[in-house]
Amino acid sequence: MAFKVAIAERSPFTLHNIPFGVISTEADPQPRCATAIGGFALDLPLYWKQVSAGEVEGVAASSEQLHRIFAEPCLNSFAALPATERSGVRAHLIEALRSNAVPEACLLPLDKVRMHLPMKIGGYSDFFCSLEHCQNCSRMTGGVKENFYHAPSVYNGRASSVIPSPTPVRRPKGVMWDTGKGSGQPIYGPSRKLDFELEMGYFVSKPIAFGETMRIEDAREHVFGFVLLNDWSSRDVQAFEMPPLGPFHSKGFGTSISPWIVTLDALGPFACEPKHDHSATEFEHLRWNDRPTGTFDISLVASLVRKKSSHRLTVSNLRYLYWTPYQQLAHHASAGCGLATGDLLGSGTISGDREGELGCLFEATLDGTTPIQFEDGESLAYLEDGDEIVLEGWCGEGEARIGFGECRGVLLPATM
Amino acid sequence: MAFKVAIAERSPFTLHNIPFGVISTEADPQPRCATAIGGFALDLPLYWKQVSAGEVEGVAASSEQLHRIFAEPCLNSFAALPATERSGVRAHLIEALRSNAVPEACLLPLDKVRMHLPMKIGGYSDFFCSLEHCQNCSRMTGGVKENFYHAPSVYNGRASSVIPSPTPVRRPKGVMWDTGKGSGQPIYGPSRKLDFELEMGYFVSKPIAFGETMRIEDAREHVFGFVLLNDWSSRDVQAFEMPPLGPFHSKGFGTSISPWIVTLDALGPFACEPKHDHSATEFEHLRWNDRPTGTFDISLVASLVRKKSSHRLTVSNLRYLYWTPYQQLAHHASAGCGLATGDLLGSGTISGDREGELGCLFEATLDGTTPIQFEDGESLAYLEDGDEIVLEGWCGEGEARIGFGECRGVLLPATM
Repeated sequence: MAFKVAIAERSPFTLHNIPFGVISTEADPQPRCATAIGGFALDLPLYWKQVSAGEVEGVAASSEQLHRIFAEPCLNSFAALPATERSGVRAHLIEALRSNAVPEACLLPLDKVRMHLPMKIGGYSDFFCSLEHCQNCSRMTGGVKENFYHAPSVYNGRASSVIPSPTPVRRPKGVMWDTGKGSGQPIYGPSRKLDFELEMGYFVSKPIAFGETMRIEDAREHVFGFVLLNDWSSRDVQAFEMPPLGPFHSKGFGTSISPWIVTLDALGPFACEPKHDHSATEFEHLRWNDRPTGTFDISLVASLVRKKSSHRLTVSNLRYLYWTPYQQLAHHASAGCGLATGDLLGSGTISGDREGELGCLFEATLDGTTPIQFEDGESLAYLEDGDEIVLEGWCGEGEARIGFGECRGVLLPATM
Repeated sequence: MAFKVAIAERSPFTLHNIPFGVISTEADPQPRCATAIGGFALDLPLYWKQVSAGEVEGVAASSEQLHRIFAEPCLNSFAALPATERSGVRAHLIEALRSNAVPEACLLPLDKVRMHLPMKIGGYSDFFCSLEHCQNCSRMTGGVKENFYHAPSVYNGRASSVIPSPTPVRRPKGVMWDTGKGSGQPIYGPSRKLDFELEMGYFVSKPIAFGETMRIEDAREHVFGFVLLNDWSSRDVQAFEMPPLGPFHSKGFGTSISPWIVTLDALGPFACEPKHDHSATEFEHLRWNDRPTGTFDISLVASLVRKKSSHRLTVSNLRYLYWTPYQQLAHHASAGCGLATGDLLGSGTISGDREGELGCLFEATLDGTTPIQFEDGESLAYLEDGDEIVLEGWCGEGEARIGFGECRGVLLPATM
């Protein structure tokens, strides 16, 4: 029986969105692919099994093939299809939902599904590409490095620690300096400076073979879509371990992502110029000439939930990044390291230049020295056990609005 | 028909060794698991199909199960077996070879097999744990950081760029400073300072779940075995990109490993004290109390092959490391990042304190300023296109000697 989906006014999952994720249910604990529409998850293998015995217009893959692809416990096979195929599938789903041609049995209430990691992630890299974030942090750590202006700065993260919202994160133990200021005596124990970072992440679709590079004008072909990303950070462990090899345990204890991947197709209408224009000084392999589509206008918000009260911590926007995701990807591919379908790239913390636009507590509280005061008397220097961070993101307003949903995570106390 | 294997006097692959690797042949291009004995690879799925229909003494897995495990294109399933199972399999193979009970059809000449990556590698981490290497490098980069003495220093590498010997490596292009000294104007082009690093690598057997840690006294259970590892490095790209996030492209264009994994069982007789005793100042979670077995006495050599001449560049030993592999693993596990079967950990460059014991050219030529002069008139500042680096490693002498074979790689010119 076909089903008309009612979509609430502020739902992130409208007919303009059609994000992709991986779900399971109590009745069917086998993870499989889905899209979200209003308050429902559309079970995609079930849909292609029940409805479309025939071919899908504009899609070379048969319904049987699509059934198999979506029955997998990750979206890697779907993301590896040519972009035109993926666009055709999305267009078909929009039309099927618009015309109420989706059987009711395929639609599962979102509050009854469990979300899984959407992709099997082989590599996870995280950038450092917001000039404002870099300037704010560098005030406390010795100034902006000149290399920032010439190429996107990036390190390898740990794919094993990427987790889907709302998985909790545990405060790590680590080695740090007892003063917390990068000096004093080394001690080992639970981190005392637990921070979040407001980022976005994007997944690789078409792979780049080891030894090969990518032209920046082809970058779109290699991006499947975007998620929200919280790069939980331990600032005291980070201060200890950074020289000279960069962050490791200070980032590797948990990286949360929102579970629904919003595709480039859905983001297309929100393409825009980045805030910073530095094209005149860019190396050719990092220069994006197809203006004005260099990045996306994606509004971002981070909030703290403590004792059931929600406090807005920051607002920001993807377009604030000094180096855009396409430039990041071109840089990543430029030395032949190879990128596989399902690899995750983190945008880096996204800060703006106005009050209330600071993407982490290290910036917003000056390394915990100037706590944020909330109206209810609570204050925040660094995160306390039980604090929950919620990231949200959306594009546009009114009818055309699409959203990312939430990226949540509660901080658990360190183990004994 | 059973076959007596003649083992040449200097063969690394004696009955005391029994390393594990993944092979394919022209006749059967499907990668599958093998061991090496003398000049032969023993095709393990074929062996367990043809010979041992019954049970293997002391091993719970049936011959049919072993056949399936070894028919996989990687050793992950075998490495995930309990250590006692793996030891039982190895003991069985030694006895079968000793008693000439291995059918001739299972033994393939090593020069006719192609070697593959032995494991499916999810995560690759690389350490910086040789005090002498750190001191030598730091003379040119601003002194040893105090944190070196309190915990093993480590960064996430890129698993996608780990390649089996003798795969060639291509000189990468990257952004660097035109003076090559971390200053001047930024330029983009082929790296001019191509280096090798003499390291060892070791693979994780028993996994550590995300959020869990490991007691150092249990470290042995989590190590499958060791390989030689050449951490090819681009020193000019590294000088550009290191501040503040550490190495990325300067390491991510290729990491070569020797293809045969030498197990902890084989290395057991060569367990020894590390060169540096700093147990009095160690944090408890990094302290190894089961002396004198903290590390292994593994002799290492790096050579340059140019114009068909071989030049010895360095000799070293795993026991020179300030932080041992067990300490590295305990540190890696201490913040809950999770470690999977097949994860690769690099020991970091291993240098000694004597002449001829410097593990990379950055040290040995003082960043290319004092080239090494060879007797035939050739000299070496950094690597030239066409240069080949060969790493070798072995334990013991005479009857009991075991070896790792070679880790080779030729440097190809940068792409146009």
